[in-house]
Amino acid sequence: MRNRKIKNLITKIFQKFGLSKDHSKISANAIINAELVGAYGHGLSRLKMYCDRISKKVINPRPKIKIKKISQSISHIDANNSIGFVAADLAIKKAIFHAQKTGLGMVAVKNSGHYGLSGYYAEQAVRKNLITLIFTNAPPAVAPYGALKTLFGTNPICFGCPTGSKIPFILDTSISMINRGKIRVAARNNKSIPAGVALDKFGKPTIDAKKALAGVQLPIASFRGSGLAWMVDILSGVLTGGNHAGRVKDPFDDFSGPQNIGHLFITFKADLFEKNYNQRIKDNIKTIKKLPKIKGVKEIMYPGQNKFFRYKKNLKKEISIPDVIKKDLETLVG
Amino acid sequence: MRNRKIKNLITKIFQKFGLSKDHSKISANAIINAELVGAYGHGLSRLKMYCDRISKKVINPRPKIKIKKISQSISHIDANNSIGFVAADLAIKKAIFHAQKTGLGMVAVKNSGHYGLSGYYAEQAVRKNLITLIFTNAPPAVAPYGALKTLFGTNPICFGCPTGSKIPFILDTSISMINRGKIRVAARNNKSIPAGVALDKFGKPTIDAKKALAGVQLPIASFRGSGLAWMVDILSGVLTGGNHAGRVKDPFDDFSGPQNIGHLFITFKADLFEKNYNQRIKDNIKTIKKLPKIKGVKEIMYPGQNKFFRYKKNLKKEISIPDVIKKDLETLVG
Repeated sequence: MRNRKIKNLITKIFQKFGLSKDHSKISANAIINAELVGAYGHGLSRLKMYCDRISKKVINPRPKIKIKKISQSISHIDANNSIGFVAADLAIKKAIFHAQKTGLGMVAVKNSGHYGLSGYYAEQAVRKNLITLIFTNAPPAVAPYGALKTLFGTNPICFGCPTGSKIPFILDTSISMINRGKIRVAARNNKSIPAGVALDKFGKPTIDAKKALAGVQLPIASFRGSGLAWMVDILSGVLTGGNHAGRVKDPFDDFSGPQNIGHLFITFKADLFEKNYNQRIKDNIKTIKKLPKIKGVKEIMYPGQNKFFRYKKNLKKEISIPDVIKKDLETLVG
Repeated sequence: MRNRKIKNLITKIFQKFGLSKDHSKISANAIINAELVGAYGHGLSRLKMYCDRISKKVINPRPKIKIKKISQSISHIDANNSIGFVAADLAIKKAIFHAQKTGLGMVAVKNSGHYGLSGYYAEQAVRKNLITLIFTNAPPAVAPYGALKTLFGTNPICFGCPTGSKIPFILDTSISMINRGKIRVAARNNKSIPAGVALDKFGKPTIDAKKALAGVQLPIASFRGSGLAWMVDILSGVLTGGNHAGRVKDPFDDFSGPQNIGHLFITFKADLFEKNYNQRIKDNIKTIKKLPKIKGVKEIMYPGQNKFFRYKKNLKKEISIPDVIKKDLETLVG
């Protein structure tokens, strides 16, 4: 199916479920972007979940979002359980505004939900010549170091910066060995997952996606990854007023209440300290790309480059939709 | 030897090498702190190196440090090749000042050197009820993902926050499997290093500390760790005006010029968004500590806790100094 056609379809579906036209469009754009960069776990595979959560009144389709200005550089957003896309879209725009005005911005969000890819919002800041750090928490998936039970989410750390070229540097890395979304897609398509990324509910290694979802995902680098996940939980949950300490509900399985996810957006001008930032970053990337490569590697890529190429390539193609999701779309549009 | 006695000795040595009394004390405090928290790779084992660098005029003992105020929240420090401790001490104090005044502070430093443990500076901010993120780069130790040659330093990511108790949460994690300082200490004491943390210069796994120093350290989590290291290089080097892209000189081996390391300090009030931050963080930690534990684990510890206990314990004891370092001290004090 053509992008535009799917985007219109998603917009129509969200409007049918009660979102405003604006909020529907914002959400559709984020979902289509995830499809185009190949992050299918954050794309159409979640559409039914969002609609289910609206139906069950745990996403508020008509939120009264409050923005509290704390200073010329800082805002606090209470998203009133809006769909995460809308809260994050507002937050990054506000963070960009702050950074453009004062050089440095910080926006905390509470009472939000899953917003898709952090990198999608980072790109918006980078296009304005800003550097950005973005943190969000997520439902329990990873056990803290020393614990037998999951509590931390896959809690991504996202960093974006201008590169002096049109391809932004976007690091968007979960602190788990694999993104939960990828496991969900595998489970949905009855595919296996790589070895060494998850344990089943009995603590045994598994490559069965469904067993992994019921079990524990492994953090990167043991206590270091666990510490980074904890940091993200504090920055996006404790600090902001969002849920934390394992209380973010799984959006697919738990309809007992809103997620109340928290996010934190930090933005600042790339040329805040050195006017020739663009030259400096170009030199940095060029130097690294010139290093001798390991066998089979054609080019050393910076984070975000592959995603950009996938996006460009997919933009020219029709989006291929798995049958199970086609069915979702048909049912949802009614 | 007693702490105070060693501290006086180090102060005396630095003064002999031309540092002011103030700068000597600041440096001695940082070195003793590293010993007390058990980070021996950042302690006395580096004293001779610092003195050698002063002698060879690649550390400036009488720096003219320039502080450029960019806004009420932001400063840029040109450390004029001071010893790193002095630059970092000034920078964290400035970052604390900014955050106390406006809620949010950012200080970038260029023309600095190795400053010891990021966590030592983070603690200073946390004691003032601030949350802090600290980034610094370091000499080449880790190969970028896809490259055959080291370029990134062990580039630590440091995060500190108040816990509502006297033990701060201090995550101070290098993006390599093991700190380079630990390998140096092992090499110095003819001890081996763990398997799986380094390759020799031919690209073969090694547990020989000296071979590891000549070879490549492995990053955590392959491309994710490599991406985080790249992020730290950009934040602390490209952004600040410091060296980057592998140009930070090894302080032990390369006396051809100053290191020009860059650092970035971000600070903000812990209760910026929620007045009951202390309650929230206490609840967070309590909830995580209550999780079922894996066999053999008595307590789930948050980052910084073990370090704090080591510090308290070591404070009561005399510092035991390896013979090779005792010799250094005797020679240096003259």
